[in-house]
Amino acid sequence: MAVELKDLTKRSENYSQWYNDLVVKADLAEQSAVRGCMVIKPYGYAIWEKMQRQLDAMFKETGHVNAYFPLLIPKSFLSREADHVEGFAKECAVVTHYRLKNSPDGNGVVVDPEAKLEEELIIRPTSETIIWNTYKNWIQSYRDLPILCNQWANVFRWEMRTRMFLRTAEFLWQEGHTAHATREEAMEEAVRMLNVYADFAEKYMAVPVIKGVKTANERFAGALETYTIEAMMQDGKALQSGTSHFLGQNFAKAFDVKFINKENKLDYVWATSWGVSTRLMGALIMTHSDDNGLVLPPHLAPIQVVIVPIYRKAEQLAEVSAKVAPVVEALKAKGISVKYDDADNRRPGFKFADYELKGVPVRLVLGAKDLENGTVEVMRRDTLEKQTVPFEGIVDYVADLLEDIQNNIYQKARKFRDEHITIANSYDEFKEQIEAGGFVLAHWDGTTETELRVKEETKATIRCIPLDGDETPGTCIFTGKPSARRVIFARNY
Amino acid sequence: MAVELKDLTKRSENYSQWYNDLVVKADLAEQSAVRGCMVIKPYGYAIWEKMQRQLDAMFKETGHVNAYFPLLIPKSFLSREADHVEGFAKECAVVTHYRLKNSPDGNGVVVDPEAKLEEELIIRPTSETIIWNTYKNWIQSYRDLPILCNQWANVFRWEMRTRMFLRTAEFLWQEGHTAHATREEAMEEAVRMLNVYADFAEKYMAVPVIKGVKTANERFAGALETYTIEAMMQDGKALQSGTSHFLGQNFAKAFDVKFINKENKLDYVWATSWGVSTRLMGALIMTHSDDNGLVLPPHLAPIQVVIVPIYRKAEQLAEVSAKVAPVVEALKAKGISVKYDDADNRRPGFKFADYELKGVPVRLVLGAKDLENGTVEVMRRDTLEKQTVPFEGIVDYVADLLEDIQNNIYQKARKFRDEHITIANSYDEFKEQIEAGGFVLAHWDGTTETELRVKEETKATIRCIPLDGDETPGTCIFTGKPSARRVIFARNY
Repeated sequence: MAVELKDLTKRSENYSQWYNDLVVKADLAEQSAVRGCMVIKPYGYAIWEKMQRQLDAMFKETGHVNAYFPLLIPKSFLSREADHVEGFAKECAVVTHYRLKNSPDGNGVVVDPEAKLEEELIIRPTSETIIWNTYKNWIQSYRDLPILCNQWANVFRWEMRTRMFLRTAEFLWQEGHTAHATREEAMEEAVRMLNVYADFAEKYMAVPVIKGVKTANERFAGALETYTIEAMMQDGKALQSGTSHFLGQNFAKAFDVKFINKENKLDYVWATSWGVSTRLMGALIMTHSDDNGLVLPPHLAPIQVVIVPIYRKAEQLAEVSAKVAPVVEALKAKGISVKYDDADNRRPGFKFADYELKGVPVRLVLGAKDLENGTVEVMRRDTLEKQTVPFEGIVDYVADLLEDIQNNIYQKARKFRDEHITIANSYDEFKEQIEAGGFVLAHWDGTTETELRVKEETKATIRCIPLDGDETPGTCIFTGKPSARRVIFARNY
Repeated sequence: MAVELKDLTKRSENYSQWYNDLVVKADLAEQSAVRGCMVIKPYGYAIWEKMQRQLDAMFKETGHVNAYFPLLIPKSFLSREADHVEGFAKECAVVTHYRLKNSPDGNGVVVDPEAKLEEELIIRPTSETIIWNTYKNWIQSYRDLPILCNQWANVFRWEMRTRMFLRTAEFLWQEGHTAHATREEAMEEAVRMLNVYADFAEKYMAVPVIKGVKTANERFAGALETYTIEAMMQDGKALQSGTSHFLGQNFAKAFDVKFINKENKLDYVWATSWGVSTRLMGALIMTHSDDNGLVLPPHLAPIQVVIVPIYRKAEQLAEVSAKVAPVVEALKAKGISVKYDDADNRRPGFKFADYELKGVPVRLVLGAKDLENGTVEVMRRDTLEKQTVPFEGIVDYVADLLEDIQNNIYQKARKFRDEHITIANSYDEFKEQIEAGGFVLAHWDGTTETELRVKEETKATIRCIPLDGDETPGTCIFTGKPSARRVIFARNY
């Protein structure tokens, strides 16, 4: 299938269309036959796999273990926690029958009415309920605590408007669910995992994030406190990239999970949950990519280096291949993934465009002239700069260059982000700044009412109350009432 | 929670109960609140993860890539391939609605009748249909082939009688789905993946398997040929441990997937699919474990070595810990997972029983006497033999011992398997041998009718027509009709 680069919409023309085009053309994902569900294609999945491996290692380093809980949840479980059911009931896929049968008219199959479930089952939109129903049997005493489980799973939320990776009915994620003996310990855990997410976003995705707390209105359904990392996309909109929830004793109370504490008294267990999803793919794409295609951070690129030979005759190819072979081996030995593309059914120009589209961080090109001169042409995807460098020492050069690119795209994203954070001191100023795009630091009176009014009028939501930064009090831009500190407003995905 | 070893049923008393006890007591899995669905607990999941990592590496070495396809499948897709729908329609979980709403009586939530789907969706029992509907758009010419995709996923089959790991409504698996330009290439692929499965079973699980072909009656619904690996459990019953299917052009025809071949003619695409599941956990448990608990092959054990200190006073513990620390580091440096269990709230005897139950291959015990003598006590889980060996050189000793255990349990299982394969030359002999347990090599006339009659009368099924071994023709033990070769009969899980 031909790559038609010309068809990639320019970001300046239509950012949203550019994103949709890019997801499809870079072979990351495509719409499936099922409404709101995507197919994650091999190239997109390879990036997700790299994310998974790294996150999984970070979870294990912080003492967590993986487990697996059922896909289906009895409908009644959902109702146990009042806020939780309120938050999820309206978007549940419901299993009502367990059998099909041949259609009486001989055409295909129909649902067998005799195979109706006594209690309907819902496909997990998140697993707090089924997990806390399970934890009940695992916990008797403080000696059984903490429980630090994570699961990698698919979840389902019947969203009305979907966009690939950003908002799909089915998505892949991990959900950590921990149980603790004290409030303090659970709070610490929630913050610990927020920090793990922030580290991962910054060091691997090269996506700068702001850590903060959600307002009551934006909290997870059933949480006492929701921590978030918020990233800024190139169009100035915010993307919530990961959340970590302090659930208090809400789910322990809903599922009657008590334990004997160190003082030999019965108490409810304290909980957290935290998750990131394939939505991170959206953040990755929209933070770094350009009008030529994907720009991938070297730490997550499935192919970090591609080598393309230029040749006319078979002997020339043989010469280049012989020269390249030890470089490929040496790069692999350093743990760098490299592809030598000597396919003869695609011209070099086509290959160049394709690897640019796919965001491969470094491209090496080697031809007859290079063999003569002892050189190699190096192209870095982040700046598209080409340089001819000595072939001698190319392995170390490439290894350094990959780190340089990783750092450069982070700095670039950070600079862009910082340049698009403004401070509003009046509602007029605020509206102007929101319209212009980016994050706006403004005072807010702390009420949901004000938050919703501002959202209605400007489409901006409070992304978070930052954990760091200026904590000077002031007056709300909307009501003039006292404000404890500035919060971050933005339009968002 | 206390480990009550005494409650583990003996294999000789009730093999089936022993298995169920062991799964729960070794913390591998437990029943969930949802009928037929299990919770895979952290220790069980850690073993599954090791299986996944290894299989995934083997799939990638053979040129496969991972992708992800939707959980839900439109009902009509299932009907496209006649055998396929026949095989799966009766055990489908069916999603009919996409929303819940508050119950009018104020009690919990009910299905919102206004949120009924136009076409019902089924939870994938396997993904051939949704995947071939997707491949249709990926394939135009032979240049787009082969497609070599795998997915790690959960699937759902509404089984009436379930047993943890062996047969559960929801299970975890991988399913490979490949598309090829020629019949030969697809056949080669199906056999290649059978060999990957057999290698994995023998080298990592230490489970000897027989490779063979399924009879028409036991074929996957929609396949032209199903290859299988069959293992023998300690009770002599067979466990089908992995299957690889040559699907011919069945799904290509059902989903109209054509391509331009090298001769510039339009043809249907050739297909395979292949899968192994969490059922492998059952095979692992039932091949090696004993009345003391799990016996895990070192290549898949989450903890390969446990070190338990024996001490009276804190100073003694400090001495032992100091002595052990460099050994732990050295073992880790060799890629061996080791746990130093100096927890002071469990007595050594309790720890010993617990790690035996959990199947940790090697246990080292170090006390004051050992410090004096420069020794350490080594226990190997497979034989339960204890030996006191010099502390000097313990790292290499342990590394060698792990390989020795891996090899020993494989040989032991192989010997048991081989001793329980018998040859029947008459139906009377056959019935006796089947009753005694094990695999029976017998002649069969090749008809489904005979196969079903034998099954009805003896509960034995044809596990496979072996790929290797004696190919001498003979006469069917049941009908006396000509038989091309002996096949393997057994009772099975």
